[in-house]
Amino acid sequence: MQNLLNTIKDQLETGKLNELSAMAADMHPADLAHAMESLTDQEKRDVFQALDPKTATEVVVELSEYSRDQVLEGLHPNKLAEIVDELPSDEATDIIAELPTDQAREVLSRLDEEDSDEVRALLIYDEDSAGGIMQLELVSILESQTASEAIEAIRIKREEVEDIHNLFVLDNQSRVVGMLPLSKLILADPLTRIRDIMEPCPLFIQADEDQEAVAHKFRRYDVVSAPVVDAKGRLMGRITIDDVMEIMQDEAQEDIARMAGISGEDEMFLSRDSFKMSRMRLPWLLVNLGGGLVSGWLLWHFKMRLADALFLLAFIPVIMAMAGNVGVQSATIVVRGFAVGQINMDNIRAILFKEIRVALIMGVVCGLTAGTVAFFWHHNPYLGLVVGLAMTSAISAASILGTLAPALFKLLNVDPAISSGPVVATLNDIMGLLIYFGISTIFYTLLVQ
Amino acid sequence: MQNLLNTIKDQLETGKLNELSAMAADMHPADLAHAMESLTDQEKRDVFQALDPKTATEVVVELSEYSRDQVLEGLHPNKLAEIVDELPSDEATDIIAELPTDQAREVLSRLDEEDSDEVRALLIYDEDSAGGIMQLELVSILESQTASEAIEAIRIKREEVEDIHNLFVLDNQSRVVGMLPLSKLILADPLTRIRDIMEPCPLFIQADEDQEAVAHKFRRYDVVSAPVVDAKGRLMGRITIDDVMEIMQDEAQEDIARMAGISGEDEMFLSRDSFKMSRMRLPWLLVNLGGGLVSGWLLWHFKMRLADALFLLAFIPVIMAMAGNVGVQSATIVVRGFAVGQINMDNIRAILFKEIRVALIMGVVCGLTAGTVAFFWHHNPYLGLVVGLAMTSAISAASILGTLAPALFKLLNVDPAISSGPVVATLNDIMGLLIYFGISTIFYTLLVQ
Repeated sequence: MQNLLNTIKDQLETGKLNELSAMAADMHPADLAHAMESLTDQEKRDVFQALDPKTATEVVVELSEYSRDQVLEGLHPNKLAEIVDELPSDEATDIIAELPTDQAREVLSRLDEEDSDEVRALLIYDEDSAGGIMQLELVSILESQTASEAIEAIRIKREEVEDIHNLFVLDNQSRVVGMLPLSKLILADPLTRIRDIMEPCPLFIQADEDQEAVAHKFRRYDVVSAPVVDAKGRLMGRITIDDVMEIMQDEAQEDIARMAGISGEDEMFLSRDSFKMSRMRLPWLLVNLGGGLVSGWLLWHFKMRLADALFLLAFIPVIMAMAGNVGVQSATIVVRGFAVGQINMDNIRAILFKEIRVALIMGVVCGLTAGTVAFFWHHNPYLGLVVGLAMTSAISAASILGTLAPALFKLLNVDPAISSGPVVATLNDIMGLLIYFGISTIFYTLLVQ
Repeated sequence: MQNLLNTIKDQLETGKLNELSAMAADMHPADLAHAMESLTDQEKRDVFQALDPKTATEVVVELSEYSRDQVLEGLHPNKLAEIVDELPSDEATDIIAELPTDQAREVLSRLDEEDSDEVRALLIYDEDSAGGIMQLELVSILESQTASEAIEAIRIKREEVEDIHNLFVLDNQSRVVGMLPLSKLILADPLTRIRDIMEPCPLFIQADEDQEAVAHKFRRYDVVSAPVVDAKGRLMGRITIDDVMEIMQDEAQEDIARMAGISGEDEMFLSRDSFKMSRMRLPWLLVNLGGGLVSGWLLWHFKMRLADALFLLAFIPVIMAMAGNVGVQSATIVVRGFAVGQINMDNIRAILFKEIRVALIMGVVCGLTAGTVAFFWHHNPYLGLVVGLAMTSAISAASILGTLAPALFKLLNVDPAISSGPVVATLNDIMGLLIYFGISTIFYTLLVQ
């Protein structure tokens, strides 16, 4: 891998672009694309320019979205049209959708009518919906036809359709009534009717379904391709498992990035532009900054009390850290539970009560520990009591907030994943401080006596 | 979905187990398994007991690992053997591997010799390795044979092998020399030699490869099944894409759980046992508790300084929060970069320098903001300077630690994912405080004049 990268860089530096092009044509396009991800943006463009049209087309679908944008930027519309023309409809649409309007129109006008109609038809769907990931290339067959007619249908479509694993079986109104795996077709007598050998279709996908729901269905039913149908059950397109793997990767990445307070997850590793990277990370940091200043203002407000009982100071960091952490744990469980379909609005109450029980157990353990440390450290039993009580309460409150926040965001149609990130952590810091100060105030006269 | 769940609960309560069994036999096993995940552990066992053997076998592979353990616990060895007997070799091995040694031996002794030999052969592999997920059921063909012989090979194996999409093509020493997609076989002339229609195999997997590496390869080459080979390239088994989807889900889940300081990610949503849940979450909380107490001890140590310049107090939470957060951002980027293969030991230096640049930009923005707030709030230009400098330094230091920690853990063969969790966050809190106190001390005489 490192060798390949060095070879490519060497060929670029010494201008041996013909050698580069010849080497690229002999490689698996996925390997070349993988190596390209480690180049600078300018190097990616130079390599891509050197590729012959066929290799360029194979490589472009393997690149990350970020690198694809880099290599296609400023490419001549003719060359772009040549690439788009060769791609399956879903990939073609993805590329056109990313282009500036003028460039997109240019490229569309250079495609043949059938291709440009297909792309236009797919462009209307949200890119995160089933319609946004489906392709129109597929093999379908009527249930009344025979096995040998099905094989003939494959022969006709084999140039156009990649990865045929199943045929979609239709009734005479184009409604999907079953699926036929090739392993079954290959063993069938040529005159058998399709309806006698087809299998029931375990899942139907609507064009407006969210891609995350599509991924759940694929995982649940263990299929490698599935039909997208309209409201009447008529076949519109198909989704294949390689797209679903990308979705799974992207959705997990998105959740993880949000947990860490990073937006724009696709560029998270690849962008070398420090200002762009800072813009992806600063917004959440500034939220945190605001939250931290509010905490500081609370401390300031409480300063006269602290001046007389300075030992209270020593337990502020631990209360804040614990509340923040428990809140993130609870939020993460609920967010992921929603994402994988184990938690829903029906069982969220039960989850909340479980969280409260768990928080009480953890709160008591941590509260006893911190309270005991406080007692032995400052030889003040009331300090032990205050710290222990505050810790237990702060942990319980943080866990309730951590559980309810994702549910609330979901109701508001905001991605719940942001609630395992900085926002809830900051709110929990502030809540933890308020609880600590509240309890200290109640016991104040005992504390300083 | 909710209706199905209510129906099942109702049938359990009123003891209509025959109805339950009949309904279950008519459903897609994946749907029943999905509904069962929302039941209590005892209800899961009751439903499972009511299923006929065939349905039980189909359902058991669809259950989560956690629920599967629940329903198989205490099942009679005969019934268990009946289920295991029907499963593909990889699933059978997974189940046997989870059983206590005595029970496993009992079940193995009840299988026929071929099945038990297969399971024993697979049991030697680490469950997270390619050997641990491969199955022995597959269809292979010699390159010298013909298309019609290949179809005959499928006919012989069709009962035993699920989901045949490709045949593995071997030379006369059992080495994998190619793959043959069924879509190509189905169109071939019956007398064509396999070597003339086979495709090169884009990937070979070694039995001891880590499952995460296997998932990368599947994603890169967009295949639905791949051969596992020994050191000489001889075919040992196959891995199919449904297993790879599970791996992807599990690996993302594991990273996310570790980021939130939760161990035992599979039980994260499903266990109703509050004590078990607390045990999964407490260890990291206690790490945090220790770290928080160290921060408190630092504050205590610095208390005399604070008593004379109490306004310093107000910026402690914001310095700690920002350092913690930036550290988590950097660690998350590096951890995920390792996981998806975009970051490796070769480019970690470049990543570190980029992180430092990004941290400096974010540090200056946040430092200026916080410094300005400090200046206007307390009308002390030196406070502004101290807060601004401390913020910039703490953010830069946190980002360096956040980048290096995952690389260090990787070198030590510890999962780098723990470094986006509580450990690094706590270290960053402490480092942030030390920086703040250090800078305050340098400027102390100016601050309090």
